[in-house]
Amino acid sequence: MTGTTHDRTREPSPVDRPVVAVVGGGQLARMMQQAAIGLDVPLRLLAEEPDASAARVVPATSVGAADDLGALRTAVRGCAVVTFDHEHVPLAHLRTLVADGFPCRPGPEALAHAQDKAVMRRRLAALDVASPRWQVVGTPVDVKAAAEGLGGFPLVLKTTRGGYDGKGVWVVGSAEEALVAFAAADAAGVDVLAEERVDMVRELAVLVARSPSGQSAVYPVVESVQRDGVCHEVTAPAPGLDEDLSLTAQQVALRLAGALDVTGVLAVEMFETRDGRVLVNELAMRPHNTGHWSIDGAVTSQFENHLRAVLDLPLGSTRARAPWTVMVNILGGPDGGSAGGLFDGYPHVLAHDPAVRVHLYGKPVRPGRKVGHVTAYGDDLERVRARARHAAGWFAGTEPEEDDR
Amino acid sequence: MTGTTHDRTREPSPVDRPVVAVVGGGQLARMMQQAAIGLDVPLRLLAEEPDASAARVVPATSVGAADDLGALRTAVRGCAVVTFDHEHVPLAHLRTLVADGFPCRPGPEALAHAQDKAVMRRRLAALDVASPRWQVVGTPVDVKAAAEGLGGFPLVLKTTRGGYDGKGVWVVGSAEEALVAFAAADAAGVDVLAEERVDMVRELAVLVARSPSGQSAVYPVVESVQRDGVCHEVTAPAPGLDEDLSLTAQQVALRLAGALDVTGVLAVEMFETRDGRVLVNELAMRPHNTGHWSIDGAVTSQFENHLRAVLDLPLGSTRARAPWTVMVNILGGPDGGSAGGLFDGYPHVLAHDPAVRVHLYGKPVRPGRKVGHVTAYGDDLERVRARARHAAGWFAGTEPEEDDR
Repeated sequence: MTGTTHDRTREPSPVDRPVVAVVGGGQLARMMQQAAIGLDVPLRLLAEEPDASAARVVPATSVGAADDLGALRTAVRGCAVVTFDHEHVPLAHLRTLVADGFPCRPGPEALAHAQDKAVMRRRLAALDVASPRWQVVGTPVDVKAAAEGLGGFPLVLKTTRGGYDGKGVWVVGSAEEALVAFAAADAAGVDVLAEERVDMVRELAVLVARSPSGQSAVYPVVESVQRDGVCHEVTAPAPGLDEDLSLTAQQVALRLAGALDVTGVLAVEMFETRDGRVLVNELAMRPHNTGHWSIDGAVTSQFENHLRAVLDLPLGSTRARAPWTVMVNILGGPDGGSAGGLFDGYPHVLAHDPAVRVHLYGKPVRPGRKVGHVTAYGDDLERVRARARHAAGWFAGTEPEEDDR
Repeated sequence: MTGTTHDRTREPSPVDRPVVAVVGGGQLARMMQQAAIGLDVPLRLLAEEPDASAARVVPATSVGAADDLGALRTAVRGCAVVTFDHEHVPLAHLRTLVADGFPCRPGPEALAHAQDKAVMRRRLAALDVASPRWQVVGTPVDVKAAAEGLGGFPLVLKTTRGGYDGKGVWVVGSAEEALVAFAAADAAGVDVLAEERVDMVRELAVLVARSPSGQSAVYPVVESVQRDGVCHEVTAPAPGLDEDLSLTAQQVALRLAGALDVTGVLAVEMFETRDGRVLVNELAMRPHNTGHWSIDGAVTSQFENHLRAVLDLPLGSTRARAPWTVMVNILGGPDGGSAGGLFDGYPHVLAHDPAVRVHLYGKPVRPGRKVGHVTAYGDDLERVRARARHAAGWFAGTEPEEDDR
């Protein structure tokens, strides 16, 4: 047990069913469990803490750190495969598991591209995938020269590793403003990547589920709206997107999934540029916030397709069920508060809109934290969007958006 | 703990969220958990055994019998309400919980009508709800006279209590054939109810979710096809049903839910007679097999609406999402086998039809046992039905129905 705090409670019965180990106890693992129940795929969870979002709903949970090889080995024992709620598992540990003969899905060679943005950028360049111009910048004094090569300031700086939800990303207007990025990178022992500030119309995202045997299923291209670097609102399909560009975006995502040998869900975040191109911004190799709409909005949710993919089962239809589906995240309000505060939102939200779909994650509310999401769907995009915004705004305790019903 | 085998593992955190106690660890509680995860409503389960269908997916599970008052009291402690996976909880125990001040939803006075068919028949008669003609029959010698008053043989005999899925129901052609029913009733210490054999076109079912505050939401009327007394196939909405009759059926169900003060889901099974009436056959006060289509086929599933109802939260839209939805049960085949046998059905079923929805219950396969269900939906009823039948037949290991794609 190698010193791991180990809190396994009830083992799944692996007889004749493959058990899937999931590293990380966040909301992605939690929503995976909803799909796993339907498929009768027992999950075994390695969670950060006993009260983690997914640990509340997965009986076979052990508590331990994702960077603890002993905890990983214990969690995966007897499982058919291991997959992930997040990308923060040391590749060395995953290579050890693979060397042990244990299937990691996605595997470490694929995951490297989701863990390290410099590795990802180099690979995309080698694959000739359209991307923002970029450069690794060694020291603050190199920022000015880098800016000149990348279209000038403002410039986007990112730590090559460890960033998420806007953390580890800075848009800087001068070399002086870049100092904070280098301080953060130095503290984390990682590099700084500079990217051109793309003249974009909007952000798009494409999700692909891919099996070890190579079957791939691509979801409709969605529009993603970020606030402060955090995904805030997703519209499926992306409104008004040129059909050729939509096809190009899907082709890029499918090609990347194959080239990087991804198994499970690959999320490809893209910029739609003002001059009508799509540039790849970020990759994630797990179910992704831009795919939450699929739970209520697609024939097969990204969570079910992720499980089907990692088990090499045939993938489900990714077709949207309604002309428009809008997902809005519920972010913790400035006052923080408890999850009970969210629950107190139900009487209004559910009465106001009997068709809105609410998903709460069982996480304590902290300002800006993703604690749930709502989904609305229907024929009229403006109405659907207003409904989803109203419900999410009410839960978040922010001033509800105008709702003109 | 009163001698209960008690296997509670991890408690839900009740802070600021109501915890719902669920008595019974079957597939209904299991599918309730999928909805509970989305709503962030922690469940606390009282299951018959540690490997029960729902116990596999609900972390806070205690093992004990539903007729053990001590086990019930332990399971409900700290919960906001208690609800049920089945009807086999002694009313006396529930009345004790109510006397303790604990909310049972549905309450014992409502549940009495789902537990005892004679009580139900008397109440329906008092409410002037159209039903098959009926009579409680004291001894086998009274059967012939009863038959004369109920339209003659064949006659339907039922034990007043304890029957389900065709158990405790006999269609008899003579007084001699009635002996088996009386033997069963005597052994169980219950009465025998005789009902006319209705000249019916088909069976229908209507589900209503009702809150303590009286809000009620009615689902579309569905057609239910039984095989050997077990629900086999459900089509939503009931094809070709006269609009007035559909409205009448929904009105009857809504009226019953109110008159009996049901909280949670009420399922009303009905006969559509050849002369254009609907007669109430059976009542159930919990999510019901005739409502499983709603998981994939309605805006709000019966499981979510059951939880919303027992927590007195506003109910969700019961609207069907597709013109036609067909649910077919997966019944254990004659060879029995293991749940792994079901899992082995995935490669074919999922590849054959990427849009079919599969739900397996994690139960060991035994002949005739409900071990899962499949759902298909779409615009063309014949195609939808063929798809669902093919998938369910494949899992069950019976000769797959013709599939003409």
